[in-house]
Amino acid sequence: MKTYIPTDIIAKKRDKKQLTAEEIRFLVDSYTDGLLPDYQMASFLMAVYLNGMNDEETAAMTEAMVNSGDILDFSEIEGIKADKHSTGGVGDKTTLVLVPILAAAGVKTVKMSGRGLGFTGGTIDKLQSIKGYRTALTEEEIHRQLRTLNAVMIGATGDIAPADKKIYALRDVTATVESIPLIASSIMSKKIACGADVIVIDIKVGSGAFMKTMAEAEELSRRLIKIGESFGRRVDTVFGSMDDVLGYAVGNLLEVREALETLRGRGPRDLTDLCLEIAQKIIDAADIKADAAEILASGKALEYFGKIVTAQGGDLSSIDDPNRNAPFVREVKAPKSGTIAAVNAAEVGMTAGMLGAGRLRKEDEIDPLAGITAAKKLGDEVKAGEVIAVLYTSNESVLDDAEKRLLAAYDLK
Amino acid sequence: MKTYIPTDIIAKKRDKKQLTAEEIRFLVDSYTDGLLPDYQMASFLMAVYLNGMNDEETAAMTEAMVNSGDILDFSEIEGIKADKHSTGGVGDKTTLVLVPILAAAGVKTVKMSGRGLGFTGGTIDKLQSIKGYRTALTEEEIHRQLRTLNAVMIGATGDIAPADKKIYALRDVTATVESIPLIASSIMSKKIACGADVIVIDIKVGSGAFMKTMAEAEELSRRLIKIGESFGRRVDTVFGSMDDVLGYAVGNLLEVREALETLRGRGPRDLTDLCLEIAQKIIDAADIKADAAEILASGKALEYFGKIVTAQGGDLSSIDDPNRNAPFVREVKAPKSGTIAAVNAAEVGMTAGMLGAGRLRKEDEIDPLAGITAAKKLGDEVKAGEVIAVLYTSNESVLDDAEKRLLAAYDLK
Repeated sequence: MKTYIPTDIIAKKRDKKQLTAEEIRFLVDSYTDGLLPDYQMASFLMAVYLNGMNDEETAAMTEAMVNSGDILDFSEIEGIKADKHSTGGVGDKTTLVLVPILAAAGVKTVKMSGRGLGFTGGTIDKLQSIKGYRTALTEEEIHRQLRTLNAVMIGATGDIAPADKKIYALRDVTATVESIPLIASSIMSKKIACGADVIVIDIKVGSGAFMKTMAEAEELSRRLIKIGESFGRRVDTVFGSMDDVLGYAVGNLLEVREALETLRGRGPRDLTDLCLEIAQKIIDAADIKADAAEILASGKALEYFGKIVTAQGGDLSSIDDPNRNAPFVREVKAPKSGTIAAVNAAEVGMTAGMLGAGRLRKEDEIDPLAGITAAKKLGDEVKAGEVIAVLYTSNESVLDDAEKRLLAAYDLK
Repeated sequence: MKTYIPTDIIAKKRDKKQLTAEEIRFLVDSYTDGLLPDYQMASFLMAVYLNGMNDEETAAMTEAMVNSGDILDFSEIEGIKADKHSTGGVGDKTTLVLVPILAAAGVKTVKMSGRGLGFTGGTIDKLQSIKGYRTALTEEEIHRQLRTLNAVMIGATGDIAPADKKIYALRDVTATVESIPLIASSIMSKKIACGADVIVIDIKVGSGAFMKTMAEAEELSRRLIKIGESFGRRVDTVFGSMDDVLGYAVGNLLEVREALETLRGRGPRDLTDLCLEIAQKIIDAADIKADAAEILASGKALEYFGKIVTAQGGDLSSIDDPNRNAPFVREVKAPKSGTIAAVNAAEVGMTAGMLGAGRLRKEDEIDPLAGITAAKKLGDEVKAGEVIAVLYTSNESVLDDAEKRLLAAYDLK
């Protein structure tokens, strides 16, 4: 590999000149290998934040991060492999609904999810609220289940895009997170390395999201699709809202229950619509003739959910088990009559975290039963004394503070 | 002190908002104390490079760096105290001529200089080519000599602006050197901490200098004067050229000899003019009625030079001693006839470094006798075979390479 002087590359980006793929690869590789110090990468990232990267540069950055770690290969399994990513929402349980719909449509999905670090659990934490569910499968089990059931829902395996992990951690402490080319290359490096042919990204928009405006969200969408093209992957996007919790439930078992209700055709409108939109985009991109709404209505997706969970050792009856409820329950009531004019979804998420639904440090234990079920959504009318939300926890001492925090998250006018 | 979240401050500058003096002080102080990591300061410096700092921010940055270390106080010594700084030139021996002129005019100067790290020696290295010259004086000696001779020329004492040292070292490796507000605050923090009332900065302009254009140099000048105002110091600037070596000599003893010749009234035009321009600006700013050119012509400055050097233990006769010459001498001759259309002064300086006049590492020894005397200057006509420059060294083995390098620095057309 050609050797460059790091400050020359930083200065080039600082002076708004286009970097070559080799220069970008040199920076990413030497940073991953520990040869480039944090301070040089930090100065580079701020130059990128302020001067941007064009499509070629963003593709080169993505490629360098893909090649920094393991690249999964499911090409020997027949059929189109799909994947989905969300830029992060509170109460987002779409994966649990989407994957069974796709499986019923004949699209293969190796859905690898992370644990939540932050106020609510990740998809893996949600799945682990199902008794017996195994999030780690052997390679052989994955291949077999993909053939028989078209889908696995597991924890991340291998060392996917370690360069992205290291760069993301640095961006977090250097005020360089909210850069569209950096966000696009970060998302895509992980998705490309996981081997999917079709990828749909749910871009959250709103004051609580990275993308504050539709213009920004559309630019991110354009970038993601463009990167996909340069790797020969079909990428599409949907724009999810961050103006409210998705559905009503926030918390691990509570969300699995809501996903199951959605698969039964009785889910909240917003959640159902988003899952169907993503599912249809993937089905279309996979060139399969199928209607996501029909699949859901037919009960076939529900059937696949049951089979997938059972195949991975999960006890389906543990989801609906009426005895599995948090010991402390508090109804939060409206202090006055009015209309819910705004919901701070991030604050609702943090309230759920206080109740035990999330972890702040890697070693924290999650309470699968803790969380919140909202009774009202943005735009709903409420009367004084009417229940807005119900809080669930195993830790009675946090209830008073959680109630205050939740009430503050709802703007009643 | 109020505590801030570093990424909030970085993000503010990133988003082109004005920082408060407290925010800037927090960053500088915590960086100097080792509490703020390099990568956060690096990201901040790149944001400053690209988004700038206004006059208030630049003054706050300067103040924070001044306060990071020792602040010298000569207020008990009567009279105006002056200082001078140059942004760096090859063959720049102005200090050696200027200080005696000022002393003769009655302006007090505590001239503290550094050692050269790079291709040629600093003022202290030049002075140390005078046998016996002491660059370190006690506080009592400094005060006494200021009263009797109006000037000392010594090495830097104390811990002046350590924040600037640490930040400058980081700028050097993060491509954030050439920022006008950062250059201005770096220069001024050292000058303010050294306690002068009147400060003249010699801003070098040209392709080899930090300031490539007159417009940039004028903006730096405006900034320096503005910072001076905010500290109640009188600051003025001159614009020196980097289009050629200053005078003819490059190398430690060679430069002292040229300075002495200049004090004798026989110096090169460009060096004499620059010294008189700086001297007159300082004399005027100090509200003293005196004419620098008259002082030089009268021989009074020469007399003060002799007294200062002698007072600091230097043997004046060692400067002109005809036996003190480098053992190896090479005349570099013009390969063809023509006009000297351009001189790469930095390359001439690096050639002098090769010959032994500079040090690349702190621990390297300087050869006081090594260096170059140019015979021709920019715009001069030369005939084929005529001497362009003479090289001096104690290391015969570098002569061939040095000759080639020197010839390449002269553009003969």
